[in-house]
Amino acid sequence: MQSKYISISSPSPHVLLLELNRKPVNAFNTEFWKEYGRTFDTLSTHHDDIRAVILSSAFPKIFSAGLDFQGLNQLGGKDLLIDPARRALLTRALILDVQHAITAPERCPFPVIAAVHGGVVGLGIDIISACDVRYAASDAKFSIKALDMGLAADAGTLAHLLKITGNHSLARELAYTSRMFSSDDALTLGLVSRVVEGGREAVVGVALQLAREIALKSPIAVSGTKHLLLHARDHSVAENLEYTATWNSAAVQSKDLHEAVNAGMTKSKEAIKFLPLKPKL
Amino acid sequence: MQSKYISISSPSPHVLLLELNRKPVNAFNTEFWKEYGRTFDTLSTHHDDIRAVILSSAFPKIFSAGLDFQGLNQLGGKDLLIDPARRALLTRALILDVQHAITAPERCPFPVIAAVHGGVVGLGIDIISACDVRYAASDAKFSIKALDMGLAADAGTLAHLLKITGNHSLARELAYTSRMFSSDDALTLGLVSRVVEGGREAVVGVALQLAREIALKSPIAVSGTKHLLLHARDHSVAENLEYTATWNSAAVQSKDLHEAVNAGMTKSKEAIKFLPLKPKL
Amino acid sequence: MQSKYISISSPSPHVLLLELNRKPVNAFNTEFWKEYGRTFDTLSTHHDDIRAVILSSAFPKIFSAGLDFQGLNQLGGKDLLIDPARRALLTRALILDVQHAITAPERCPFPVIAAVHGGVVGLGIDIISACDVRYAASDAKFSIKALDMGLAADAGTLAHLLKITGNHSLARELAYTSRMFSSDDALTLGLVSRVVEGGREAVVGVALQLAREIALKSPIAVSGTKHLLLHARDHSVAENLEYTATWNSAAVQSKDLHEAVNAGMTKSKEAIKFLPLKPKL
Amino acid sequence: MQSKYISISSPSPHVLLLELNRKPVNAFNTEFWKEYGRTFDTLSTHHDDIRAVILSSAFPKIFSAGLDFQGLNQLGGKDLLIDPARRALLTRALILDVQHAITAPERCPFPVIAAVHGGVVGLGIDIISACDVRYAASDAKFSIKALDMGLAADAGTLAHLLKITGNHSLARELAYTSRMFSSDDALTLGLVSRVVEGGREAVVGVALQLAREIALKSPIAVSGTKHLLLHARDHSVAENLEYTATWNSAAVQSKDLHEAVNAGMTKSKEAIKFLPLKPKL
Amino acid sequence: MQSKYISISSPSPHVLLLELNRKPVNAFNTEFWKEYGRTFDTLSTHHDDIRAVILSSAFPKIFSAGLDFQGLNQLGGKDLLIDPARRALLTRALILDVQHAITAPERCPFPVIAAVHGGVVGLGIDIISACDVRYAASDAKFSIKALDMGLAADAGTLAHLLKITGNHSLARELAYTSRMFSSDDALTLGLVSRVVEGGREAVVGVALQLAREIALKSPIAVSGTKHLLLHARDHSVAENLEYTATWNSAAVQSKDLHEAVNAGMTKSKEAIKFLPLKPKL
Amino acid sequence: MQSKYISISSPSPHVLLLELNRKPVNAFNTEFWKEYGRTFDTLSTHHDDIRAVILSSAFPKIFSAGLDFQGLNQLGGKDLLIDPARRALLTRALILDVQHAITAPERCPFPVIAAVHGGVVGLGIDIISACDVRYAASDAKFSIKALDMGLAADAGTLAHLLKITGNHSLARELAYTSRMFSSDDALTLGLVSRVVEGGREAVVGVALQLAREIALKSPIAVSGTKHLLLHARDHSVAENLEYTATWNSAAVQSKDLHEAVNAGMTKSKEAIKFLPLKPKL
Repeated sequence: MQSKYISISSPSPHVLLLELNRKPVNAFNTEFWKEYGRTFDTLSTHHDDIRAVILSSAFPKIFSAGLDFQGLNQLGGKDLLIDPARRALLTRALILDVQHAITAPERCPFPVIAAVHGGVVGLGIDIISACDVRYAASDAKFSIKALDMGLAADAGTLAHLLKITGNHSLARELAYTSRMFSSDDALTLGLVSRVVEGGREAVVGVALQLAREIALKSPIAVSGTKHLLLHARDHSVAENLEYTATWNSAAVQSKDLHEAVNAGMTKSKEAIKFLPLKPKL
Repeated sequence: MQSKYISISSPSPHVLLLELNRKPVNAFNTEFWKEYGRTFDTLSTHHDDIRAVILSSAFPKIFSAGLDFQGLNQLGGKDLLIDPARRALLTRALILDVQHAITAPERCPFPVIAAVHGGVVGLGIDIISACDVRYAASDAKFSIKALDMGLAADAGTLAHLLKITGNHSLARELAYTSRMFSSDDALTLGLVSRVVEGGREAVVGVALQLAREIALKSPIAVSGTKHLLLHARDHSVAENLEYTATWNSAAVQSKDLHEAVNAGMTKSKEAIKFLPLKPKL
Repeated sequence: MQSKYISISSPSPHVLLLELNRKPVNAFNTEFWKEYGRTFDTLSTHHDDIRAVILSSAFPKIFSAGLDFQGLNQLGGKDLLIDPARRALLTRALILDVQHAITAPERCPFPVIAAVHGGVVGLGIDIISACDVRYAASDAKFSIKALDMGLAADAGTLAHLLKITGNHSLARELAYTSRMFSSDDALTLGLVSRVVEGGREAVVGVALQLAREIALKSPIAVSGTKHLLLHARDHSVAENLEYTATWNSAAVQSKDLHEAVNAGMTKSKEAIKFLPLKPKL
Repeated sequence: MQSKYISISSPSPHVLLLELNRKPVNAFNTEFWKEYGRTFDTLSTHHDDIRAVILSSAFPKIFSAGLDFQGLNQLGGKDLLIDPARRALLTRALILDVQHAITAPERCPFPVIAAVHGGVVGLGIDIISACDVRYAASDAKFSIKALDMGLAADAGTLAHLLKITGNHSLARELAYTSRMFSSDDALTLGLVSRVVEGGREAVVGVALQLAREIALKSPIAVSGTKHLLLHARDHSVAENLEYTATWNSAAVQSKDLHEAVNAGMTKSKEAIKFLPLKPKL
Repeated sequence: MQSKYISISSPSPHVLLLELNRKPVNAFNTEFWKEYGRTFDTLSTHHDDIRAVILSSAFPKIFSAGLDFQGLNQLGGKDLLIDPARRALLTRALILDVQHAITAPERCPFPVIAAVHGGVVGLGIDIISACDVRYAASDAKFSIKALDMGLAADAGTLAHLLKITGNHSLARELAYTSRMFSSDDALTLGLVSRVVEGGREAVVGVALQLAREIALKSPIAVSGTKHLLLHARDHSVAENLEYTATWNSAAVQSKDLHEAVNAGMTKSKEAIKFLPLKPKL
Repeated sequence: MQSKYISISSPSPHVLLLELNRKPVNAFNTEFWKEYGRTFDTLSTHHDDIRAVILSSAFPKIFSAGLDFQGLNQLGGKDLLIDPARRALLTRALILDVQHAITAPERCPFPVIAAVHGGVVGLGIDIISACDVRYAASDAKFSIKALDMGLAADAGTLAHLLKITGNHSLARELAYTSRMFSSDDALTLGLVSRVVEGGREAVVGVALQLAREIALKSPIAVSGTKHLLLHARDHSVAENLEYTATWNSAAVQSKDLHEAVNAGMTKSKEAIKFLPLKPKL
């Protein structure tokens, strides 16, 4: 897999590290966000034995500076000015495309861990909001930038923020001001689950430990857990319980269950060789 | 704008301070809650350049003691006793009216910041639950009073509480006991986002800083952010993303975006003169 | 009421203490989870003056070790292997049955307080997730065990976890790893609302204080509050407000309201004798 | 009750006849649609013993020609052109106002019967779609006019059409072409439930028979039936069943039930004198 | 299976005929509706090879006269009058119980065909609304009786009526008047799919042909179709499509598919011996 | 645009005719359904001035025979048998892909008219269910084939059928039997809106008249109408009204509205030259 703006490596079996890598500050132009979405969708579909992905930045001081202005220029062509309704349709289609790319990690069957450090700004918040787990280096600084651009954020921050955190008052305050907030503020809000003392290396290191732990589990069980948690987020308890029963009616027929149960009894769980989620034929 | 039980002042451009002001403890009789709703609805509809509102109390020791008993007497007329079904219809209509008044801040296009101090009791919790941001003075004391009155709270506390906070166990415990809790408890629960050392003056001062910060932003962007956050609270992520794209297809055609982007480049954002949200014709 | 695996006592008027009591570690076989659901459903339907229930374990070192392997054996009969679709239907029906039993506390008209201590593993987490309030002894240790068994949890943990807590990143991390976490972690996550220094006796003691406080309130008001909070969890604010108005249109006709208001005025609330929720005819 | 554009008479006890009456073709300018909504809302709130309303037109040849062009002019002020986003907010608020007025019959506690004749065009279809029952004279002609104006209908036709009828293919065809269709087509589609041979007098006469029949019933039962049907339209069967149980828990305590049951036994149902829905105190 | 008020026979392999049989007019007292629900739930759970059920009446002139007055008497005990709120809770629980019994056919994994004749009144309409298919003899007469009793129907008629038919105007008209309507009216409304000339024998005969046709199909496919249609009724198209994919991911692993495909090729489909839905172990 | 199995022509300005064209009976193998979806998605995205599409078959005697058996073979690879859970995931992904292709007409901004003739079987019903308008030649014959294959239909028939028609009893009967039904039955059910005497030529001719009529309208208005109708199908009336107001807040700013209004006044609507929906830049 080749990628222009995203460095991909495998620091451990079944684990990938994706580093955003567009100089100088990981600003997202059209090419970059399309590549971002395509990368995750390709991993979801074609790679058969990834069990966890870490998302980080190649630049210690900045995770992402957000949307590149070029993204907006697309909307400003002179000819479009001839009709606000047609311009709205084009804009709407563009926003849907950006959203689809940025929420690609949700479509992955494996957990995506955002290991952030340095500046996390604007689209950077959209990006980490669509990941499963968020760890921050103590040097990280966050800002929901959109308001300073005269915009309501539209690639996921507003959709996710009130759900993934535990204090609407603080979440709205940060959304209404676009002010910078620290890793500790992010932890208080519930936006991240862990602050790691240090910078890029430190947070990626801790994320890697988590990824390795996940990689030892049955991929059937992990992908089901992710799928059902996302369903639970968006449905009532009763609706989710019934869906879970339907989902698991196939999933518990997996041989992974028997292997895991046996391993649990013999305490040798690291030795289990689970089948890939999508075995090659 | 004249108001009998609510003092209105403008401590800063585009910012209003509303102080609940019915002696001696801001108990809400029918006239008061109707005026409360009407005040916010009038601000939403007829005033064209408000960008943030602070809600506080004129009395340092008490934000609000909750519903006045007169509100209940209305339901107890002798003649109504002749038929429980008709009495239920009348009661239902009355509750819907109270709810409509108390949730008026949600219908405002600008953020409403509750700056609470002293006692916040019963309907007082309903009131702040429907605001955008909640700050508490360190002297504030809270109680979901309804249960002590033999009632389930019905003007918004139960509707909002589990959503705006981050610990259902604590939220339910407070709802089932009506016990008093402190500002620090409120912060732990996620009911408020900040505890300000001191009393009324201190918390209103800090709320004013936040209001001023919001007042510098594009009113198109702030009102869109509020609208989309409220939509996100009540819809799935997928549903909200599509709605957001539709909403922004018109909103990003605003000139505010270009002005804000330019200001961002020249670092002079305080000097931007955004148009009012509802320009006078 | 007789029960094989659950000890039932009444430490205080209107309060029951239920202790899980299947040696050695409260592992749930089919008989046990059926009895668990039936016990709560019986309390809901036939007992007319219970106002709060505490759920704990008879064994200081372990609240519950989760599902007994026998539960899984049911699914593995040789004859079932003849058709995966029929096997799926049977499995689905079994999961729905387990879910129905484990969520029985939600169907009770009174609050259920989980007072946990020692190990809380697998189905143990499902069980406490469906309770109203969760208190933990400082010696409690938690693990969403399912993943180690090659399974996605399906009796309520995934359905409840993101809703009842305030940090999706942490909740997912715990779900993806099945790692042990402490009482303090549970408090940070928002899974419990209080950590009580000590073990079984300490946490049950504090839960008992809460239960007594609840038992002083009007059962009409407490059961309405529980019903409306559960509705609020699963519906939009607007939908819940209208439902609340409909519900309360009958509930406020209760005499409890007048008695509670009068008691509030005379400060003698402990002396109120509320009618049972389901008076005997 | 005075009304400029709507003639109000009472052809039978508890029954009102409302006739749209703005010359020459019942085109709706701003004043007219506001009055339309206000009239129904006033009837809902302040009149205590109306049990059925018939909606018709004062002009035999035309029920309504739809929106008056003046309604659109409001949106075209020169000053508004300065910002498409602000213009969109103003337009949105205007559409919401029109929708709120046109759907007023849904908020009435009594059934509203549209007795249509002659041309029923554009907003005319929105209007009848929000009524409970639709009867058409054989001379009636219908057109969802909006598309011919370069618009998607937005005051209720699109919201209601697929739900209230039984053939999506036909409904969409009529929406995509704005073509005229006859009373018989309307019956086939399911838009009306009866075609009455003749014109205005004939259809109003038959509607009056229906209104009189409804007026004999308990107003508690009729208003409950309407409320629950509207709820059923917009919710799942399970959700509606639970809501119905909650609603009826108060409604079946009505004395009307006993009176109706007794009357049923003595076959004298026309003689029952039910209390008004909102008895005067 | 023994039943006091329901005659059960098997006119054809895999097909049951259930005849309501409480003299003289199939009025439903408490015992009868409890037995009705229990009968269907028992068939669903314990009988492993039923593929279609026909529901009819033992009395040619009457399908059902609806609720017996005794059902209401339960709600009128003198002692209950002491508190309207407690009375409401008891009433609500009773209505939920009736609903649960009457909707039991929805929980069956096989289609239930209502073959109605003679009078179908009140609860009779609730009953057939929860069946899969409705056939009427030409002598059938229908009335949504509830309104004549001073009640809004609450055991399913209002929940189902607007969904299962194709003309809201007609459906509401019939609900608001409780007037008698004929088999032909029921066909026009869409309440039944076929009118069979004659009476009880004729309609049961035609229903039996349908049942036999269904009994030839794979029970995995038929029960899946029913389950997915009920899901589709209550969910959006997108939500249902995803659920369908999840459901079928197990169902298409059935051997029935291969047997049916092979039989399709050899034109011998009547000879397929599908496994029971719940094979005995 | 080249296509292997779909013939594309333009019988009239802004109108396309798509003819399914895989010999001998339009059975859908993997290549065909992928091409089907891709064709519509390409038309939606890249072609800027299509205003209506007619879908028909190149073979007079058969519209489509449904899914080709090869589609199923994909699921039966020997290696997959090693684990039912992994096999379920693969199957689920395949079904989602088929669904996505078959529902492609819903994603088009223009109406798609199915003009069917001859046999319409299995996947053929899924296909026409996702179109906007359905016309049938009098020689058409329909069968929801899935059940005869031992399957519940999963590419849209079950999701759409109860919504787009007006008689659940009939719809379920056809789904449970897979029996053949005629054009007239389809009209009664509400599955088609018109039966055209004759065969392929006749029905395509009438569909073409409809397409031409649609092609005269503003593409902004037609695409908005389609978008809002689809939203209305899947949301409550209240939810749809608010969405419609948001959508139209941009759409009514279109110049099409003014052109259409002017044309309406001068009766020359055929002469309006609306801009393409997606003007080339």
